[in-house]
Amino acid sequence: MFPSPTTSSLPGSTLTPQDLGVGARFTVAVMDSDFATIILEALNGADAVGLEIYTDPVSTLVRGDEQRVLEYVAAVIAGAARGGHHVSATVLLSRGCPGEVSCATTPGLLDEAATVPVLTPTGLRATAHWALYPLDDTGSPGESPDHMRDIYAAIDYAKDRGTYVRGEHYVTMLEGDLAEVLGTVAAGWVLVGRSVQHVATHITLSIASPTEV
Amino acid sequence: MFPSPTTSSLPGSTLTPQDLGVGARFTVAVMDSDFATIILEALNGADAVGLEIYTDPVSTLVRGDEQRVLEYVAAVIAGAARGGHHVSATVLLSRGCPGEVSCATTPGLLDEAATVPVLTPTGLRATAHWALYPLDDTGSPGESPDHMRDIYAAIDYAKDRGTYVRGEHYVTMLEGDLAEVLGTVAAGWVLVGRSVQHVATHITLSIASPTEV
Repeated sequence: MFPSPTTSSLPGSTLTPQDLGVGARFTVAVMDSDFATIILEALNGADAVGLEIYTDPVSTLVRGDEQRVLEYVAAVIAGAARGGHHVSATVLLSRGCPGEVSCATTPGLLDEAATVPVLTPTGLRATAHWALYPLDDTGSPGESPDHMRDIYAAIDYAKDRGTYVRGEHYVTMLEGDLAEVLGTVAAGWVLVGRSVQHVATHITLSIASPTEV
Repeated sequence: MFPSPTTSSLPGSTLTPQDLGVGARFTVAVMDSDFATIILEALNGADAVGLEIYTDPVSTLVRGDEQRVLEYVAAVIAGAARGGHHVSATVLLSRGCPGEVSCATTPGLLDEAATVPVLTPTGLRATAHWALYPLDDTGSPGESPDHMRDIYAAIDYAKDRGTYVRGEHYVTMLEGDLAEVLGTVAAGWVLVGRSVQHVATHITLSIASPTEV
């Protein structure tokens, strides 16, 4: 379904996640009057080793390798949701556009495609709307660009993993432990990244919505 | 910069916005313990004439023509923010994928490209992170797919409009009246939609963040 990485770690490679444009932006909203304290404690309570992190009024930027970026995002969202308040979070994972807005082709990017991040279960149930964008202008050797083919492969992966609920307009609904939902999205992003240089994915997560509990 | 629509309204066309896959999904988070009442009142207070609307625990789906969809999204977000609480909202605008997850080419879609939505100022200042995804597998007649070319054209448009702040990693920062920010994003989406069938755009908005006021 997905191509294997041609070389999952190139011997002697010096490309950093920053060189490869690998990172996330995420926004956590806590529906409580004490939101500022809860969000700050969640940000400060997550392990930031090996990561570059910058929070502004709109979102938090996290740059580093796929495994650590996902661990950090999961830890902050779980930390904000532990108190039982309704939490809504939006996460953007991006790879392949290393500059600010520039997006030159990075030699070696596909070869550097990472292994699928593995996350520890959080005990928190999340419902999510997921969108995946393979931004392929040229296609792989021998293949034409077909962004829907790549999206369907990721959806099939989600079905195998058990987090898939249904297709909705513009998004796919996922449900499960927060770690499994984030893990599904991260996997689709990494796996498509083995054949497409520039891949972005967006997820909107809901935890403990009053309409669900 | 952007191509003109070949025919902005085809005489006798029977394609609906639903046929063209035109619509939005959005999530409004109000950082207050009374969030449920505030969000419900904002949803119920916005004019829904001509729209198909469905709210689930993760987001609200809005389908209809571009102008009405944007008016509704702006009205709900403004309604939720009027009380002065910190509001975070995420908006996905999509066109060109009419089915659930299916995405067959729709004859006439490019010819049906709409005029740019015009929104009434809200008096609410918003800061936003914006991402635009032209999902072009084939290119226009005589042109190869180049998703970054289309994104740069939309960013140039935002600069002309005065909402552009700067390029950030993975996103462009916009700032201004909520209506101007949403209008900029909607314009990029519609204008790229004149040459690319499937175009999605995501924006995360922040209003009255305690770090800004």
